[in-house]
Parts: sequence; C-alpha cells; structure tokens
Amino acid sequence: MSAGPVKLGIIGLGRWAKVLTRAVAKSDKLKIVAGYSRTEEKRRAFQQEFGVAGVPDMKTMLADPEIRGVIITVPNEQHLPVAVEVARAGKHVYTEKPIAATLEDGIEIEALEKKYGVTVTVGHSARLLGSVRKIRAAIDAGELGRVAFMEGNFSNERALELTPNTWRWYKAKAPGGPLSQLAIHSFDILHYLGGDIVEASSMASKLSPVGAEVDDQSMTLLRFADGKVGYVGSSWTSPGIFSVRVFGSKGLMHSETDFSSWDVPSKLHLTSALYIQRGKDGYGKREDLKVPESDMFVAELEMFAESCRTGKANELTAHNGNVAVAVVNAALRSIDNRGQYVRIGDILDEARARAEARKVHVA
Amino acid sequence: MSAGPVKLGIIGLGRWAKVLTRAVAKSDKLKIVAGYSRTEEKRRAFQQEFGVAGVPDMKTMLADPEIRGVIITVPNEQHLPVAVEVARAGKHVYTEKPIAATLEDGIEIEALEKKYGVTVTVGHSARLLGSVRKIRAAIDAGELGRVAFMEGNFSNERALELTPNTWRWYKAKAPGGPLSQLAIHSFDILHYLGGDIVEASSMASKLSPVGAEVDDQSMTLLRFADGKVGYVGSSWTSPGIFSVRVFGSKGLMHSETDFSSWDVPSKLHLTSALYIQRGKDGYGKREDLKVPESDMFVAELEMFAESCRTGKANELTAHNGNVAVAVVNAALRSIDNRGQYVRIGDILDEARARAEARKVHVA
Repeated sequence: MSAGPVKLGIIGLGRWAKVLTRAVAKSDKLKIVAGYSRTEEKRRAFQQEFGVAGVPDMKTMLADPEIRGVIITVPNEQHLPVAVEVARAGKHVYTEKPIAATLEDGIEIEALEKKYGVTVTVGHSARLLGSVRKIRAAIDAGELGRVAFMEGNFSNERALELTPNTWRWYKAKAPGGPLSQLAIHSFDILHYLGGDIVEASSMASKLSPVGAEVDDQSMTLLRFADGKVGYVGSSWTSPGIFSVRVFGSKGLMHSETDFSSWDVPSKLHLTSALYIQRGKDGYGKREDLKVPESDMFVAELEMFAESCRTGKANELTAHNGNVAVAVVNAALRSIDNRGQYVRIGDILDEARARAEARKVHVA
Repeated sequence: MSAGPVKLGIIGLGRWAKVLTRAVAKSDKLKIVAGYSRTEEKRRAFQQEFGVAGVPDMKTMLADPEIRGVIITVPNEQHLPVAVEVARAGKHVYTEKPIAATLEDGIEIEALEKKYGVTVTVGHSARLLGSVRKIRAAIDAGELGRVAFMEGNFSNERALELTPNTWRWYKAKAPGGPLSQLAIHSFDILHYLGGDIVEASSMASKLSPVGAEVDDQSMTLLRFADGKVGYVGSSWTSPGIFSVRVFGSKGLMHSETDFSSWDVPSKLHLTSALYIQRGKDGYGKREDLKVPESDMFVAELEMFAESCRTGKANELTAHNGNVAVAVVNAALRSIDNRGQYVRIGDILDEARARAEARKVHVA
C-alpha cells in the first residue's frame, strides 16, 4: 500500500462539493487533486477557494493513474452516467445520497462494483453520527437486551419556504416531500441499527400554506426481518428535529441531535443529548450519556479513502443506498394504496427487472 | 345548588377503587358515602380502610336520594349492566376506562345519557396531566402555529412478566396487547389535542419470550379531520415511557412523563420534562418549561362531581371514551388487513348497528 493520502478527483463543484472538500481538508488520509465541472467559471472559483486544480474534462481526470477514486456530487439524475465513466476507468466511486434519482439507476450503479471491480460508497453519513454509533455499540454489547422497537424522526421547516422556483416544490423531483428528502436518512439509520427491513406502511399529508405540489408530512411504519417494528416520522413544517430512540428488553436509548447546521457536524455533540433508561427505570431515572464528538463527513470520506486503498467495500455500500431508496418507494406505493404494507423485496425485484429490461432495450 | 361535597357511591372495591378513593379524600368537592361489592369481606375491609359504609346490595345504594352519582370500577364486561342500573336510578355515571369491553356496550352506555338524562364520565385521566394541558393551552393560544403532526408513546415492560394466569396473556381479553392497554390512552390524548380522528393504520408484532397469546409491539398512524397526521407507539417489552410531541409551524413541544408509578400522579412533575422549540430553533435552543403539578385522578373526579352537581357533561364524555375504543378497533382491523387505513366512522357505525340489532333481538 502506498504511503501518504489517497488522491481523489471530484466531479460537480456546487454547494455540497464545498462541504465535502472542507471535510477532506481535515483529514490526512485523502486529498482532492482534481476538480471538474462543465462550467469553467466554477472550476476556476473552486481552484481559487480550495487549491484544487480544475480539469477541462472528465477524461483528463479519469486518465490520471494517481487518482484512485472520484467523489460525485452532480445532480441525482447524473449519478449513473458519471459513475459509469468513473468505474469504467477503474476508479472507485463515491456518490452523494440518494444513490440515484431512480432505483433502476441505483441498481445499475450497484452492478458497477462487480462489472469493473471497483467499490461504490454512498454518502449516507447520518449513520456515522457519534450518538448513533454509541446506540449500535450498546445493542451489540447486549446492553439493551432484545431490541423490539425503534423510532426515528427527522423534521425541519423547509416546506414553509418552498417556492415554485425550488425543485423541492415538485412531486416528481422530491417524491413524498420530507419522505424522500429527510426520512430516507432515518431509514438508513434504522436499517443500520435494526438489520433487514421487510415491509413498510406509510401515511402522508399536505398542510403547508405555500401551495407546493409535494406532501409535507410523512409517517412510515417498518417491519424488520426479525419481527422488530420501526417508525420514521418527518414533518416539513416544524422546528428542526433529529431523534433516534431504541427500545430493548433491558434498556432504552434516546438521542436528540441538533441539526440546525447539518453542514458543520463537528459541533453537533455540543447541543445534542443522549440518555439511557435501564431495566424498568422510568424517565426520571435515566442516565445521561456523553454524546461522542464526531464528524460524519470526515468519517465517510475516510471510509471511501480506505476502500480506494484496499479495494474492499466499506459499510456505506451501494446496496444500503438502494435499500434506503426502496423503503422510500415502498412508502410511496403504500400511500397510493391506503396504507397497505409493501414489501421492500418486491420493490427491489421490480427495479432490478426494469434495469435489466432497459439494458436489453439499449443493446 | 347544594353546599358541601357531592355525595357518591362506588361499585367494585378492588385495587383501582382504592386509588380513586384516596384521590377523593384529597378533595373537598366530593365524598364517597357508600361502597358495594358482591363480596362481604371486601365491603368490610373497604369500610375499615376508608370509612366508607358498605351496602349489602346495589339497590340500597341507588335508592339513596343523597347519592348523586356512582363510580364504577367493576371489570370492563360489567360496565354496561351496572351503568344501566345506575342511570335508571337517575344517578350520574363515572366508569373506568375503557368505557366497556366492546364498542357496542360503549355505545349503549353513551345512549344512557339521553335516555335517563344523566351524564356519563369516562376516566380517561391522562389527558388531564399538567404537561398535556400545557401543550393544549399553547396550541389554543396559537403559540405553535399550525399544528401538523403529533407523536405519542406509552410503553412499559409488562409483556416480559405475563403468565397464563394473568388476563393480559390472552388475545380476547387484551386485544393487540399494548394497543388496547396503553396506546388507548395516547389515542385519547391525541384526540384531545388534535380533534377528530378520521382513520388509522397499524402494525403489530409479538417478540416477548414469555409465549403469551397477545402481540406486544404496537405502532399506529392516525389521520385527523383537518389533515394532521399522528403516530402512537407502544412497546410492552421496554423501560417505561410516556411521551407526547406536537409539531407546529411556529413551535414544537415535547413532554416526557415518568409513569414509573401511575398510581401516585401528584409527584409526576418532579421527574418529568417539558420543552418547547420556537420558530426555526434546533434542539440546542429549546426552552425548558415547568411541568405543572397536577393530580389527574383528583381532577377527573372533581369533573365528575361538577357534572353530578350541574347535570352538564364534562369533557371526559362517553363519546370520547368510545372514540378511543374505536381507534383501537380500527387499528386491530388494519393489522388484519395488512395496514389498510380503516375509517373510525365506519367502526363506530358498525358498532351502532350491532348495538341496535342487539336491542331489537332482546325486545
């Protein structure tokens, strides 16, 4: 293995690229050495702000043998075509969440792993929060006993400020509103904490006075393979919340994370809370736990760097990214079918079939 | 209106009768002057402990013109026949929650109000908790803006300790497990805070190792008449929780109540918490609010005394009691139908038809 930081390229130089590039700067394990955007002006500005050399086309970046992997932050619809180019060049892929705009695209991105022998990392960073890791450690250590029940909530006031000029106004762009924009993060966390999700049932409502197309209230119930049940709530018209609560036969853990600034995760522990109730203890006997300091963006990018170095997948797999989208799609179908439980396996199988049919059609 | 405390009888002298009689002793607005149980020994013991004269039969109690109302704490199956006797004698009725073992019985109890010109009070006391009242006051004052989303959770470890000798072991006695035993209280609270409930969707699971018949995990989604959505979760295999969280466009309120002793509500505020997040404030900027001291049992009984005095219904109506049971029944049907939304109105209409058919049959 080579010494020094893993060298990476970045494609798409918008707001999120800046957040990630700042995170990269905090780590000595990776370094962004080339940036590409179609707009020359953006490339120049990015080079000026971060010292990352702009390249005139993707080809130039992908021909550089020093570059082991590429961070993709282009719009969701572009994830697949860009990822195909990156993988074909033998570079490892990092793509922002959601893995793609459609599940078929996501399935094709997942297939790049085998086809080109590269790894794909999907930036479901919220599961890397210090408090979430601490809950998982408690589950693994048996501290909570048999876990039977989990709740998550991720809410903010976004729908109170939508205008027809914002893409989130539209159903086709942000299906289910907070379901596809916020709840998807909680689905990934519950998947991480609770294992395979079998089916979902969901309810939505539209209450914001702004008149947007999309729903702005979302509640989804989940059934896990081992019989556990889960709930994810997401209101788009309220003060911000990010909570996770896990109920076990020996203990209950509850975390509240202050996401008033999602962009600066290294400060989150200062305004967040985590407690445990043990045995039969009521709320009054809860024990406050220290929220570990963490930076989920540095953590996810270091995982990606490690995969670039070793060629081995990390836990932020394309498959997990597809499961999160599949739960969203199952919830959407359940809403259309008056709450009917929808199987995640069916949603994935159908998307696989559509991806397959598409390839045949193209060929 | 006569001066002095309202005089009441009590029928059924078990554990809950003692809890309520202790509450009555704290108020100067009502006084229990006669107690009846079929078992002479129980009557004697009750007289000894509380100084309440035992009467040898219901008739004697109901013939006493001084007695304005009767507290019924007999088993749920007996609520209707006892309530009929009490109402027929022109006395006001207080019955423990749930209003009855079946919704048809509840509908018949509700009908006693018109038929005999008496009031019926159903002991859904949890809505009288100081923190719940404070949330309602904030909603009414517009402090939370447009309320769009509500969550409740009422959980405890009961299912870890069930044995075949306890009635809660059996499906027919405790349908849905925590759904009919705990979640029903949260349904009434959400009904109180959010208004009419239109439909419910539900999921259940059975995970306790004890092998009981009943489910022990329950999650239900609700849709309100004004488009709000609600969630009530109830695990029967975890440390105790009682939480209510209300999401509005201008604020969010979250209460956690320590029910490690439900029987002694006057101390609850000492180990409970209530906070508000205003505007766009994240969790870190929440403002802790004082949990008002309250005694929900004294409060409900004083409401009953007031109804006995004035002949006017209080907010703990038979109708509200029936709505809470109807939501439970809708959730049970939804579970049987893989999550399908079930309309509360349909459940109530069907029960009314069954109650009607029963009367015709009897006549």
